[in-house]
Amino acid sequence: MEVVRLLHMNKGAGETSYAQNSKVQSKIISIAKPMIEEALVEILSKNIPESVGIADLGCSSGPNTLSVISQIMYMIHGQCCHMGRSSPEFRLFLNDLYSNDFNDIFVSLPAFYNKIKEEKGIGFGSCFVFGAPGSFYGRLFPGNSLHFVHSSSSLHWLSQVPPGLESNASTALNKGKLYISKSSPKCVLDAYSLQFHNDFSSFLKSRSLEVVSGGRMVLTLMGRSTSDATTEDSCYHWELLAQALMSMVSEGLVKEEMVDSFNAPYYAPCAEELKMAIENDGSFMVDRLEAFEIEWDGGCGIMNDPFERGVRVAKTIRAVVESMLESQFGKHIMDDLFRRYAWLVGDYLASSKTKYVNLVVSLVKKDLRAQENKDYCISDALRISSVRLRKWKASFLRQIKSVFKVMSKIY
Amino acid sequence: MEVVRLLHMNKGAGETSYAQNSKVQSKIISIAKPMIEEALVEILSKNIPESVGIADLGCSSGPNTLSVISQIMYMIHGQCCHMGRSSPEFRLFLNDLYSNDFNDIFVSLPAFYNKIKEEKGIGFGSCFVFGAPGSFYGRLFPGNSLHFVHSSSSLHWLSQVPPGLESNASTALNKGKLYISKSSPKCVLDAYSLQFHNDFSSFLKSRSLEVVSGGRMVLTLMGRSTSDATTEDSCYHWELLAQALMSMVSEGLVKEEMVDSFNAPYYAPCAEELKMAIENDGSFMVDRLEAFEIEWDGGCGIMNDPFERGVRVAKTIRAVVESMLESQFGKHIMDDLFRRYAWLVGDYLASSKTKYVNLVVSLVKKDLRAQENKDYCISDALRISSVRLRKWKASFLRQIKSVFKVMSKIY
Repeated sequence: MEVVRLLHMNKGAGETSYAQNSKVQSKIISIAKPMIEEALVEILSKNIPESVGIADLGCSSGPNTLSVISQIMYMIHGQCCHMGRSSPEFRLFLNDLYSNDFNDIFVSLPAFYNKIKEEKGIGFGSCFVFGAPGSFYGRLFPGNSLHFVHSSSSLHWLSQVPPGLESNASTALNKGKLYISKSSPKCVLDAYSLQFHNDFSSFLKSRSLEVVSGGRMVLTLMGRSTSDATTEDSCYHWELLAQALMSMVSEGLVKEEMVDSFNAPYYAPCAEELKMAIENDGSFMVDRLEAFEIEWDGGCGIMNDPFERGVRVAKTIRAVVESMLESQFGKHIMDDLFRRYAWLVGDYLASSKTKYVNLVVSLVKKDLRAQENKDYCISDALRISSVRLRKWKASFLRQIKSVFKVMSKIY
Repeated sequence: MEVVRLLHMNKGAGETSYAQNSKVQSKIISIAKPMIEEALVEILSKNIPESVGIADLGCSSGPNTLSVISQIMYMIHGQCCHMGRSSPEFRLFLNDLYSNDFNDIFVSLPAFYNKIKEEKGIGFGSCFVFGAPGSFYGRLFPGNSLHFVHSSSSLHWLSQVPPGLESNASTALNKGKLYISKSSPKCVLDAYSLQFHNDFSSFLKSRSLEVVSGGRMVLTLMGRSTSDATTEDSCYHWELLAQALMSMVSEGLVKEEMVDSFNAPYYAPCAEELKMAIENDGSFMVDRLEAFEIEWDGGCGIMNDPFERGVRVAKTIRAVVESMLESQFGKHIMDDLFRRYAWLVGDYLASSKTKYVNLVVSLVKKDLRAQENKDYCISDALRISSVRLRKWKASFLRQIKSVFKVMSKIY
C-alpha cells in the first residue's frame, strides 16, 4: 500500500466526511491545549521573534484545521499583549499528505482572515497561511525556520506497512487481523515496533533541522498504557474491525486472503518507546510527557445507548480509514462493513470500559551549536592548559638547571 | 462579482479543463524565458543566497504550473554549476486565488520530486513547495523573503469589476458589451484604466515589502500596442464573446439585462501605463519592458482552417472565463455559448490578422535602505560641515581678537 498516496481523511462535508466526524480529535486537541500554551509562554519568555514560524503537521481538513492554528496565534498574541508587546508576523504552515483536501481549507481562508480581523482588530500581526504538502517523515521546511511545531492525532500513522506485512508479502503473517492482536506472532509485534522506531527517528531528524534552537514541539498521538503491545486500549478497535471483515468473509462477501494480506500502517507506542526514540535522536529534550484516556466516541453523550455510541465510533473510524480500506476491499462493501462494525463496537462498549490512550509530549530543541561551542571551549581550555603545562615544565627545568649550575660552582 | 471567490481556471483534466487548454499561456511563458534567465543571472552574479525564495503568482493548475518553477530552479542550478557552486535551498511558493485547484498540483508533487532527482541527481539543493493561496493585490508573503517573483498571464485580471460597472449598478453603462469596446462611453474606459492603476499599485506595494533588495520580478500580462484602449488587439476577443451572448439574447435564450450588467474584471494596459505605475510606486526599477505578439490559438497549426482555429480559441477562452460567466448566466448555456463563440472567432480570423499583444517586464527591487543611508550620509556630511564651519568661525574670531589685542598694545 502506498501510504503517501492513499492515506487521507474522508473529503468534503457529507455524512461520512472527516469534517463531520472529527469530534474525538477535537477533544484530544483541547486536552493538549494547556501544554501548548505552556510551551508558547516558554518560547516567548526568552525572546519574541519578529516573524514566528508555526507548523501543524497532519492538519487534515475540517473544523479542527484552522481552529488549531488560530488558537496558537491567539495564545501568542495574548502573551504578547500581557508583556506589552505587539504580536509578531505569523508564518503558518499547514501540512498533510499530498492527497489531503487542501482546496477545502483554502476556500475557507477568506472567512478565517475576516474572523481574525473582527476578533482581534487590525493591530493583530500579519498572518500568512501556506499549504505544505508531503510526508512528515521527511524534510518539509527550510532549515531553522520554525519556532513551534504542533501535531495531533497523526504520528500513530506509519510511513508504510512494516516490512514483511505488506499486502504482496509471500506469507501472510497476521491472518485474519489488521493490526497487532493477542493472536499475532511475535514477529508481527517486532515488525510494528521497529517500523515505529525508524519512522519516529526520521521525524525527529527532519524536525531537528527545521526547528530553531529553543523552539518547541507539542505532539499527541494514540498510544498504550503498558509495555504490552496487545493491551486492549491500544488495539481493540482494530480487533473489532477485523471481526467485522471476517464476518463478511464467512458470508462470502469478502475474500479471506484479502483480510490476511491487509495490515494497517499504524502503531500505538507506550511512553517509554517514545522517550527512548527521543533520547536516541538527541536533538530534542523532553519537557513533559503525559498519557490521558479518552472515550471511543470522545465522551459526548456517554450515558447514551451503547449501540448509538457504536454508530458514532464507526463513523469516526470510517472517516479516517476508509481511503485505505477502499483500496484493498473496494468501495462497494464500505456501508455494510461499517454497519457491522458499529454493531460490534456497541456490543463491546455495553460490557467494557476500554478507552483510547493518548500520549502528549512537549519537546524543546536543544541548542546544539551551544553544545558544540561548549565542547569546543572545554577542548580549547584543555589545549591551553596543556600548552601552559609544557611552558611551566620547561621553565621549571630551566630553573632546576640553573640551580644545579650554581650549586656545581659552589661545590 | 466576487472575483476572489469566482475567478479560477477550469479544474480537472477534462476536455474543457485549463490543464488541456493552456497552450497559449505555455507559449507566452516560453517567450519570456530568456528574460527570466537574464534576471536570475543578475541575481546570482551579486551573491548566491543559501536559501532562495521564489514565488509564481497566479500559478493556476495544469502542466504549466510545475514546469515554470522547475525551469526557474534548473536555471539557478545551471548558473551555480557554471560558477562552480552548489545550488541553494529552494523555497517555492505557488500562488493563486483561494478557489484554484491546489489539490491537483499537490498530488502531482511526488512525481515532480522524483523527476528532479532523476534529472539532476541527489546533489541538487533541497526544494520545498508551498501553496500560497490569496490575492496578489494584497500581502501574501513575509517581509523580505523572496528573491525572485514570476507571474505570467495573470496580472490582466483585476481585483474587482471597476466601480460603476458592477452587476448591481443602478445604470448599465456598457450595454451589450463585456469589456471596453469601440461603442463604450469614455466613463467606461476611465473606470477600467483607474482600476488597473489602483490594482497594479497595490501589487507593487505588497511585493516591495516581500522582495529583498536587488531581488527581481519578471511579469507578463495581456496588453495593447497603442494608447487607444479600444484597439482591436486588446479587446476584440471580448467583443466577439459579447456578440455570441447577444445572438442568444436575440433568440430569447439569455436576458439582455444580464449581458448589460456583466463586465469583465480584466484590463489590457499599454506599456506606458505599466511604466507610469512602476515609476509612481518607486520601489522597483524597470530593467527591460517589451511587447510581443501571439496568435489567438498560440500559433500551433496557423495554416489550419480558421474555423478549426476558432474552436481552439474558444476552448482556451472557455477554460479561463467559464467560472465567471457561469455565475452570471448559468451553467446550462455554456456549451451553446462557446459553440457560437468558436464560429464567430473562426469567421473573424478568416479575414483578420489580429493577434494578442503581451507585455513582459523585468523589474529590480531598489535598495531603499541604501537610498535612505545615502540620504542620511548626505545630511550627516552637511551636519559635520556646519559644525566644522562653526568651529572655524570661532577660531577665526579668536585669532582676529588676539591680533586686535596685539595691535592695540603696539598703538
